[in-house]
Amino acid sequence: MEAKIISSVQNSLVKKILLLKDKSRERRKTGLFVAEGQRELELASKGGYNFETLLYCPEILPQLDSHLISKNANAEIVQISKQVYEKVAYRETTEGILAIGKAKKHSLEDIRFTTKTPLVLVAEAPEKPGNVGALLRTADAAGVDAVFIANPKSDPYNPNIIRSSVGCVFTNQIGIGSTTEIIDFLKKYHLRINCAALTASKNYVECDFTGATALVVGTEATGLSEDWLQNSDQNIIIPMQGEIDSMNVSVSAAILIFEAKRQRGL
Amino acid sequence: MEAKIISSVQNSLVKKILLLKDKSRERRKTGLFVAEGQRELELASKGGYNFETLLYCPEILPQLDSHLISKNANAEIVQISKQVYEKVAYRETTEGILAIGKAKKHSLEDIRFTTKTPLVLVAEAPEKPGNVGALLRTADAAGVDAVFIANPKSDPYNPNIIRSSVGCVFTNQIGIGSTTEIIDFLKKYHLRINCAALTASKNYVECDFTGATALVVGTEATGLSEDWLQNSDQNIIIPMQGEIDSMNVSVSAAILIFEAKRQRGL
Repeated sequence: MEAKIISSVQNSLVKKILLLKDKSRERRKTGLFVAEGQRELELASKGGYNFETLLYCPEILPQLDSHLISKNANAEIVQISKQVYEKVAYRETTEGILAIGKAKKHSLEDIRFTTKTPLVLVAEAPEKPGNVGALLRTADAAGVDAVFIANPKSDPYNPNIIRSSVGCVFTNQIGIGSTTEIIDFLKKYHLRINCAALTASKNYVECDFTGATALVVGTEATGLSEDWLQNSDQNIIIPMQGEIDSMNVSVSAAILIFEAKRQRGL
Repeated sequence: MEAKIISSVQNSLVKKILLLKDKSRERRKTGLFVAEGQRELELASKGGYNFETLLYCPEILPQLDSHLISKNANAEIVQISKQVYEKVAYRETTEGILAIGKAKKHSLEDIRFTTKTPLVLVAEAPEKPGNVGALLRTADAAGVDAVFIANPKSDPYNPNIIRSSVGCVFTNQIGIGSTTEIIDFLKKYHLRINCAALTASKNYVECDFTGATALVVGTEATGLSEDWLQNSDQNIIIPMQGEIDSMNVSVSAAILIFEAKRQRGL
């Protein structure tokens, strides 16, 4: 199979990639996203994603993994010059591979639980892409059943989310919706809603997370919205004993998730 | 008291601040550092730091906190123009206050334990300032007795460490030394050395962290050095159940620290 070769940064595909990386609107409009790096593409493949274009820079990566090609038999394969690669890639990455993939919808209706006692993480309106990525990475490592993002500030294919999740945006089952929609969903499936909050809260180590459990975290600055607090089955808190009174949201979420895993016999 | 006023970015104090922020060597040579932001300066004061210069931008912050002035009676107070402030400040910060402070030595001999069963965190050669900051923030929130940095890649007053620690670099008791020096120190004080490692490791939730405990973490890329593993009392691991096999070092450390706190009756 002969690959198309692109060596001009003015090429229309190059422009398309840059638009998809930069503009959430462009990703929404086209239903496409750009992923970069060997591990990210491998995890996306594992997560059931298909690529419509695979691009590699032979000066960095002599050839594409045959497994990746066979899994994406309909993908256009494009060789790019180093100059083009440097134009489209993150500066620090030197793996020489990226791809245009088809986004998933992340509808709540598509969420499937394989257990009667799922453990899920909900993040409301997380602000920094780096925090979303860190949450997704921890959620994958812990093997939670799903991650919900309520009232998201960006789509999950923001390049900074992909990167900071080290590709775990592709491996997690992610549901996206409004706070109201997600609360309704959790209630429908009888998940106990545990809201990280400062008021009326119980020490998280004294809570029972062995049943169907949702751990819900808000932003560092403003916490969770009233909608969550009014629908909370239990407010929970991580007691702090230092000079500061807050932790990074991805750190707090990790502590809560792994306490739930501990209770479930990690 | 009349404040000195600086409105030129060419001023020698402005140049000194920029050097102290940019150059670890300059900080080492002078024993000084720059801190920025209301909370950071407040935490530094609580942590026993003294400032030799307090700078504020009246266009942003009308006046300095009187408590801060009285605690630093010998400090020179300088008003700076907005142009100067923007030159010396982090872009996103708009609090209008910074200071030049006197660094601590962080010698191991200065570490004091107020309990017979201290809980300490050790990080070997952490690479990213953001990770060091995150570790220090979590350590403060958990109230650990000390944080040790073995074979550091930068000094603790790196502006990115200060910022990502949200000032907790000032509130933690921090000991810095070589891996060998820190191992000797921990042994001298009979702390049990628990090394986060992939081999010969026990599930962390099955370990006893209620005695004098050191939790030791390495880098994501290479883990801990042989020196640590040879002196380990117990290798520990956080079992992972997803597609990826590693978590961010600050997340792993947080999970270990809060498990220790849980065992100690958080």
